[in-house]
Amino acid sequence: MIRVGIVGGTGYTGVELLRLLAGHPEVALTIITSRSEAGRDVADLFPNLRGHLDIRFTQPDLDRLCECETVFFATPNGTAMTMVPQLIDAGVQVIDLAADFRLKDPEVWEQWYGTAHACPDYLEQAVYGLPEINRDAIRAAQLVANPGCYPTAVQLGFLPLIEAQVVDIDGLIADAKSAVSGAGRKAATATLLCEAGENFTAYAVPGHRHLPEIRQGLESAAGGPVGLTFVPHLTPMIRGIHATLYAGLRDPGRDLQALYEARYNNEYFVDILPAGSHPETRSVRGSNHCRIAIHQPQQGGVAVVLAVIDNLVKGAAGQAVQNMNIMQGFDEQLGLTGIALIP
Amino acid sequence: MIRVGIVGGTGYTGVELLRLLAGHPEVALTIITSRSEAGRDVADLFPNLRGHLDIRFTQPDLDRLCECETVFFATPNGTAMTMVPQLIDAGVQVIDLAADFRLKDPEVWEQWYGTAHACPDYLEQAVYGLPEINRDAIRAAQLVANPGCYPTAVQLGFLPLIEAQVVDIDGLIADAKSAVSGAGRKAATATLLCEAGENFTAYAVPGHRHLPEIRQGLESAAGGPVGLTFVPHLTPMIRGIHATLYAGLRDPGRDLQALYEARYNNEYFVDILPAGSHPETRSVRGSNHCRIAIHQPQQGGVAVVLAVIDNLVKGAAGQAVQNMNIMQGFDEQLGLTGIALIP
Amino acid sequence: MIRVGIVGGTGYTGVELLRLLAGHPEVALTIITSRSEAGRDVADLFPNLRGHLDIRFTQPDLDRLCECETVFFATPNGTAMTMVPQLIDAGVQVIDLAADFRLKDPEVWEQWYGTAHACPDYLEQAVYGLPEINRDAIRAAQLVANPGCYPTAVQLGFLPLIEAQVVDIDGLIADAKSAVSGAGRKAATATLLCEAGENFTAYAVPGHRHLPEIRQGLESAAGGPVGLTFVPHLTPMIRGIHATLYAGLRDPGRDLQALYEARYNNEYFVDILPAGSHPETRSVRGSNHCRIAIHQPQQGGVAVVLAVIDNLVKGAAGQAVQNMNIMQGFDEQLGLTGIALIP
Amino acid sequence: MIRVGIVGGTGYTGVELLRLLAGHPEVALTIITSRSEAGRDVADLFPNLRGHLDIRFTQPDLDRLCECETVFFATPNGTAMTMVPQLIDAGVQVIDLAADFRLKDPEVWEQWYGTAHACPDYLEQAVYGLPEINRDAIRAAQLVANPGCYPTAVQLGFLPLIEAQVVDIDGLIADAKSAVSGAGRKAATATLLCEAGENFTAYAVPGHRHLPEIRQGLESAAGGPVGLTFVPHLTPMIRGIHATLYAGLRDPGRDLQALYEARYNNEYFVDILPAGSHPETRSVRGSNHCRIAIHQPQQGGVAVVLAVIDNLVKGAAGQAVQNMNIMQGFDEQLGLTGIALIP
Repeated sequence: MIRVGIVGGTGYTGVELLRLLAGHPEVALTIITSRSEAGRDVADLFPNLRGHLDIRFTQPDLDRLCECETVFFATPNGTAMTMVPQLIDAGVQVIDLAADFRLKDPEVWEQWYGTAHACPDYLEQAVYGLPEINRDAIRAAQLVANPGCYPTAVQLGFLPLIEAQVVDIDGLIADAKSAVSGAGRKAATATLLCEAGENFTAYAVPGHRHLPEIRQGLESAAGGPVGLTFVPHLTPMIRGIHATLYAGLRDPGRDLQALYEARYNNEYFVDILPAGSHPETRSVRGSNHCRIAIHQPQQGGVAVVLAVIDNLVKGAAGQAVQNMNIMQGFDEQLGLTGIALIP
Repeated sequence: MIRVGIVGGTGYTGVELLRLLAGHPEVALTIITSRSEAGRDVADLFPNLRGHLDIRFTQPDLDRLCECETVFFATPNGTAMTMVPQLIDAGVQVIDLAADFRLKDPEVWEQWYGTAHACPDYLEQAVYGLPEINRDAIRAAQLVANPGCYPTAVQLGFLPLIEAQVVDIDGLIADAKSAVSGAGRKAATATLLCEAGENFTAYAVPGHRHLPEIRQGLESAAGGPVGLTFVPHLTPMIRGIHATLYAGLRDPGRDLQALYEARYNNEYFVDILPAGSHPETRSVRGSNHCRIAIHQPQQGGVAVVLAVIDNLVKGAAGQAVQNMNIMQGFDEQLGLTGIALIP
Repeated sequence: MIRVGIVGGTGYTGVELLRLLAGHPEVALTIITSRSEAGRDVADLFPNLRGHLDIRFTQPDLDRLCECETVFFATPNGTAMTMVPQLIDAGVQVIDLAADFRLKDPEVWEQWYGTAHACPDYLEQAVYGLPEINRDAIRAAQLVANPGCYPTAVQLGFLPLIEAQVVDIDGLIADAKSAVSGAGRKAATATLLCEAGENFTAYAVPGHRHLPEIRQGLESAAGGPVGLTFVPHLTPMIRGIHATLYAGLRDPGRDLQALYEARYNNEYFVDILPAGSHPETRSVRGSNHCRIAIHQPQQGGVAVVLAVIDNLVKGAAGQAVQNMNIMQGFDEQLGLTGIALIP
Repeated sequence: MIRVGIVGGTGYTGVELLRLLAGHPEVALTIITSRSEAGRDVADLFPNLRGHLDIRFTQPDLDRLCECETVFFATPNGTAMTMVPQLIDAGVQVIDLAADFRLKDPEVWEQWYGTAHACPDYLEQAVYGLPEINRDAIRAAQLVANPGCYPTAVQLGFLPLIEAQVVDIDGLIADAKSAVSGAGRKAATATLLCEAGENFTAYAVPGHRHLPEIRQGLESAAGGPVGLTFVPHLTPMIRGIHATLYAGLRDPGRDLQALYEARYNNEYFVDILPAGSHPETRSVRGSNHCRIAIHQPQQGGVAVVLAVIDNLVKGAAGQAVQNMNIMQGFDEQLGLTGIALIP
């Protein structure tokens, strides 16, 4: 059993992290901090946890956090970077579910997030926590930047094509659809049921913060610049991301199904569907799996990849627990074998 | 490990039973039968089970079913009663999730279900599988009639009031709201997303099949006739039942909160909320809990009970597994401690 | 053509009022005021109005409002009562869609709304704008209090039973289910899609502000005190209220279907469905109709009334336009004959 | 007033057509035929029509249909082509909402629809009913093939780019998202609320029947072959299509906003949003408008077009009425000025 702390945790990634950690056999959750909810029973805020977790939110307390083996940050962007240095220096393993340590270049961070990075010196040691490409580095890391939800789906979907150099990387298109929980639990008009329900819309077409994160990952795989158009959409449901990816094929004769199956053959959390399939977001609701189908319509020159995840699990809290398992030397699947809820 | 068989299982109670049994540490699912889906991989029909269950539907085969310790029927009403006698005579424990063995009086069964009962001789030994009132009988039973979804919520909500004789039992009102999965997975116009979505309606006000089942249970608790009005409604969501119950109080001064807490003090799966609460169906989504709040508006003469369950779990598959645990002498909570999914 | 002004109008009753007035042949909308949105194009806030309405929100301006024949208040509770006296004194007809003038007794108002009433002297002349009981008074009124959404459905449903004195008025029960738009357009966690979606819950069981309003109306019809239990629920959809009403019958032999048909025979906006029907909320989505079915389950002693309205139309903006039509001497149906949207 | 008949009309395009025709000042609906529902009151099947339409479904009757000025086919694919010749020969104007006359080449029709075309001789005179490109031909037509829902949104979105020859037409991508009503009102498991709700999925990626229809239209505009990848998706809502279109720009410096505004300057039913906008499907719910935004992310080489329609209105019944208005010489907007429902 390890002692685990959470900073933040009043949002949707927070409650999902609590759900997963409450059922994790090697975790003792010892502290969860929140300025706004300090003193409140966690199960009062999230009634699904009644009877499963007996802990209250407390004021942030660095000393108590430093007694943990692992600390998760489930905070808004910009918070973790103000506290992480002390925790790292104290020897604590840190997993940040926000964006603070995802981008390697602090100038790019400032450009997209609007403030200077508070601890650029710690960016270099931060490992981007996508286990399917970075497992060994994660195992050795003390600071993991948990990937964004869109970047997880888009990168897992594109990687086999890019690594195998079978597509034109100048004209990649990622058309991604997210459930509304991706926008968080904060009070806001745009995500009211009566605004986001029975409605579908694109947003942030001029530029979304996940664009540089995805591009950084794809360029790392490609070994050079990629041209990427990324368009996110809001779809009227609670959980799930569906990424539809388009890439021009250099060699239309390549067996793409075999390529994908080979790439993810040993990846428990990435499931390549049989040829001709169309993954459903609900098939991963509450689970840490990414399910992918690869198509080549009319045997033409365009590859179409369909990738689904639960944005709160493989796109956030589940991947964070997967990273903790790797960092701690646990079985990577520990606490993450729950089956998706259908219907 | 016990060998378990399922007859039917292509509907929503079926997939939920499969999800729960796949994660149950003492169960080996050895056979699942379906005439319509024989030969098909279970995980092909229900993609959430990919990687968790490796079994195909087969044609019904009584000999193979008789090799099981426990057989579940997740079939339409009227099917189990044609097969149960052979299984019972062969010593198999049977849990029927349909209505075939819920009503004690075969004439009442015929009146509400439209056909003569196929094995009325087996009705007497059938135990009504609501553990919170029948635990000892279930432990000794070979044939358990798993309660309906509405009857589970309504009975758990009313029982403390009736058992303590604090309400007028001539004018009970149960206004119940069900998610659409209660109507099953069969193709039907009325439950299409475009018909049942963004819509709310009552149905079966002249008489619903769960009325005699609820009445039978309440009369058993009351020790005599009760007057009950039961109105079910369809609410545009996938899972959940909310029962709002009304009863006239004989003694408005009684401490109802204490009454409910005492009644369910030792019941893990029944959670009495703090005074003043309003349970949410989502707080039990995917879990086997029933959460209840008891109100007495304006300290007047009417008790208002709010009870929520997941219709597919405590209202069907979860309760069936709970009954299996009791019948087999397992820990009653085994395989049923998953946490509800919020959001 | 009359000149019409709106105070407020940035919420859901506001946009619905704008939709109806934009299509009304006798209305020229000359001013709409909002402190928060002053200067903004109405069609920018509500994109459905693009090309249909060319007007901007302006700062409140009493002089310009006084130039209107009719002014609607689509403001939060407590705003209209600070401005109405001047408008009334200036001879303007006022229709308040909020609660300021619904309760006749200012002490009851203060008890439920938490502040003293700002102009109790104007309460007496205010007419409660339910045309089906108050048409003549509305025709002569200068100040109309537009009924709440729940009170409209519950009163229209109960009135025939109470007026005909066929039920026991001591034990009335109103179990009402509202779509989420009833909670308004303000940013709030509880009505986010991810909180209110796929969820069903009761709320305000200890006491809801619409309780005294409904009771006042029913007592007026009954000519004396009534005993009423009112439980509102939130149902995961955008529009619609379904009221399920229960009353004990004094004479179970009375022909209730005939009673309801006779009561509403001349009411265009109240539609009594054929015996045995179950009205759907979607059947009135966007329309000003109330559809009602009357049941007597198993020919027993309880009457069950099912009444549906669109909470934003007959429950708010549509009824307000209906009241304006009556007050102005227009055809009562003018601008209100749009057909509900199915699916 | 013209006499209008409908063949079919029991599905979603049917009820929407009925809603629009019931409110059309120049239409007398004299006959609606359905084999399955003959004898049933239309308002019994579609309760929103109660009080607005007093007509019953009758058996198909060619003689009575021939007495109409205009006959709409709201039937499954393959029905209209068996009846249209007689109607055309009798001088009736026909508008087919199904696919029977959309494709010019009967061999392509047979390839995608699986049966030989029943009246290939009538294909030549059929006019593709997209008024924004074919208004003059529609005015002179006797037989109009009403476009599919996806093809309407995708063509209106792409046309300005293709007509102005500013994009590379070899690599067009149309990523389209449809509400569930696009799948029709027939009983089917896949479109149950519990299957299609809270779920997002692509479908028919290997090839959808709307692909050849879209390609035919775009090639006509381009004057030559185009390369098009078309991926449809199912999104959990009732109405709406959102098409996200991608095209490589030949000249990234072109003012695309001006191009779109100029192209649709005189088109009442196509609304180009201000630069930087993201159209919402709900902004056209129930209305005949197509709203479009044009983007060029990061001033790069890719144009991104966002186009929304109500699939049942501009994508089906509304466009059919628009075509009728043009064919009959009515004002093109007649009966089509209703405002979309928000929320």
